[in-house]
Amino acid sequence: MTMNRQLLMLPGPTPLPARVMQAMAAPLMNHRSQDWSELYWEIEKGAKWAHQTQHDILMVAGAGTYGMEAAIANTLSPGDKVLALSMGYFGTRFGTIAERYGMEVDRLTYAQGQVINLADVAAKLEADTARQIKAVLVTHNETSTGTLNDLKGIADLVHAHGALILVDGISSVLTAPCPTDDWHIDILISASQKSYMAPPGLAFVSVSPKAWEAYAQSKLPRYALDFEILKDFANRGHNPWTPSMPVYYALKESMQMLQAEGYVQVIARHEHMMRAVRAGAQALGFRPLVQDEANASRCVTTLYPPEGMDAEAIRMHLLNTYNVMIAGGQGDLMGKIVRIGHLGYQSMAEIYGTLSCLEKTVQELGHVITPGAAVAAALAL
Amino acid sequence: MTMNRQLLMLPGPTPLPARVMQAMAAPLMNHRSQDWSELYWEIEKGAKWAHQTQHDILMVAGAGTYGMEAAIANTLSPGDKVLALSMGYFGTRFGTIAERYGMEVDRLTYAQGQVINLADVAAKLEADTARQIKAVLVTHNETSTGTLNDLKGIADLVHAHGALILVDGISSVLTAPCPTDDWHIDILISASQKSYMAPPGLAFVSVSPKAWEAYAQSKLPRYALDFEILKDFANRGHNPWTPSMPVYYALKESMQMLQAEGYVQVIARHEHMMRAVRAGAQALGFRPLVQDEANASRCVTTLYPPEGMDAEAIRMHLLNTYNVMIAGGQGDLMGKIVRIGHLGYQSMAEIYGTLSCLEKTVQELGHVITPGAAVAAALAL
Repeated sequence: MTMNRQLLMLPGPTPLPARVMQAMAAPLMNHRSQDWSELYWEIEKGAKWAHQTQHDILMVAGAGTYGMEAAIANTLSPGDKVLALSMGYFGTRFGTIAERYGMEVDRLTYAQGQVINLADVAAKLEADTARQIKAVLVTHNETSTGTLNDLKGIADLVHAHGALILVDGISSVLTAPCPTDDWHIDILISASQKSYMAPPGLAFVSVSPKAWEAYAQSKLPRYALDFEILKDFANRGHNPWTPSMPVYYALKESMQMLQAEGYVQVIARHEHMMRAVRAGAQALGFRPLVQDEANASRCVTTLYPPEGMDAEAIRMHLLNTYNVMIAGGQGDLMGKIVRIGHLGYQSMAEIYGTLSCLEKTVQELGHVITPGAAVAAALAL
Repeated sequence: MTMNRQLLMLPGPTPLPARVMQAMAAPLMNHRSQDWSELYWEIEKGAKWAHQTQHDILMVAGAGTYGMEAAIANTLSPGDKVLALSMGYFGTRFGTIAERYGMEVDRLTYAQGQVINLADVAAKLEADTARQIKAVLVTHNETSTGTLNDLKGIADLVHAHGALILVDGISSVLTAPCPTDDWHIDILISASQKSYMAPPGLAFVSVSPKAWEAYAQSKLPRYALDFEILKDFANRGHNPWTPSMPVYYALKESMQMLQAEGYVQVIARHEHMMRAVRAGAQALGFRPLVQDEANASRCVTTLYPPEGMDAEAIRMHLLNTYNVMIAGGQGDLMGKIVRIGHLGYQSMAEIYGTLSCLEKTVQELGHVITPGAAVAAALAL
């Protein structure tokens, strides 16, 4: 039943379109040439479209985590008060980076599967009458738990207070609406290996005018991630260091595909995949970690296994027998849940295929199901 | 005379072998899988071979500059005294990063084309009787000027003094001998897009036991570049962030090729290319910026144009008429010199071809030469 064709159903890295993969198999080029500047500006334009921003987009080589670090290191100073909202692994990481940079971090932490409660945020901000909170850190979509926050609600509260809002949008950009400028997001971070359908290696960081004002006050050491250095080179369509050309070649293709598909359509595709996975998995007896579909991640669905079944046994059987790679739990949820990614270059055909293999898997592991139940539920949407 | 096949004669990025380019056109994979760990360890082993070290090799996503920043941010603290040796653009950058991180930086700066004078270094270190200099920053090979330092001589002096020696080996590793452990180099940085014949995107940082001791004392903020976090994940063959798989796929192929060629042979190849370019260019009336061949970079040759000729006119004619891309000067040398790279996946055939096109170029720009002079000089070696 197994062949060497693995279906990657992870919340990143994602399957890549053939033209994106092929684009990488090209000679490198001079990154101090006019040709490079033109490619750079095309990618910058695509990222502005994805972020829905007219403000600056800076490109940080490395990974999404580097973008989160850049956001903190460029806008804050040691001793600054920061409110970190966390519902899982990546939210916790965002707060940890701030702590390591010497911020005084107040954390609002939610149980896994829960989203940020707006009333709690409002209370924290209202209590800060001296306006000492300099920034609020938010994970828009938490991939470890499969939760999607009401970012607009949070952003409105922060905007009214006056603090900066720094948003990890790594797994949310292009899977859920996140109009940077309309929602007054000061910094939004996205990364090439998520909905962009490209390989890892590059993070995009959008910087609002207010974030630039904060930059001018910030007293933290940085060089490769420094906004002003990045901006200075970006003005010429260059990077301050040697950029990874293949990642740009890939993004050129995938951004063309995404823009041809359309912003609203890309987001609708992810929402449809999420609904299909939830419906199909529930028909097999899986229980979503996130109860309310409105709070469910558009890029990854987190599921408790059917009663009496082992999450890791399901995951390994699906991989070893059907070559479908889904993710396991992270942190406290390790071994307790499975996570099915539906992100990037995925079509409904892969979703139905995954649900079918999942059905066979639970059946082969002894669970009684109605044949075809998973796909039937998904198709009924 | 021109076709769409550009010869990239830069000091990085370099031409890539076909199998390296093709390796990138592959599906992404789960970076939390055993398969990834095996690939990670294979690349780690290749980098240890290139660095000639038994100590730790950490992998820093981004670019060589990130590796330089990691070296400083992980071993030093604000106020530490640092001796920065500079003979050009990249040496200056190394010192600048240290300044931005709050070090008290004493610079020994040399005219472009000169190498570091060991007597000056000895004098600086001898004068430091209180042993306040915590680290010495060295660029092994300065690509902006085409100079190669006597790294062993410098390292011996620093070792006797007791300071750390942090070495930018980005363009020197595998082009000139740099046995990390034998020479007591505490941190050596290399990068994927130079002699490794792979795309940009990854830096290698080797860390000596003494550098780990310094890490324990260091008080600087960092997260994505933190040695302990990197090492903790590396123990499992993982990265703390999502790695750029295509860069690893490429390195797997190119490191196999390089190891099959042999350490001594790879270095000898670069030295031979350097000698051929110097000889050929001099036969056309170019004057090397670096007088003594012993001090000449093994990866890039810097040349003043023949008397009365314009460096940029030569460079642009070579590019526009023969599609051979060489580099121009950087900083103060902009417009004054040309730089011919001979690095990575280059064979003597490309060197002879470049010299031949260079000969035609200067002839077509009005310079009188003996036909075949450039290649004849190179072939005579």
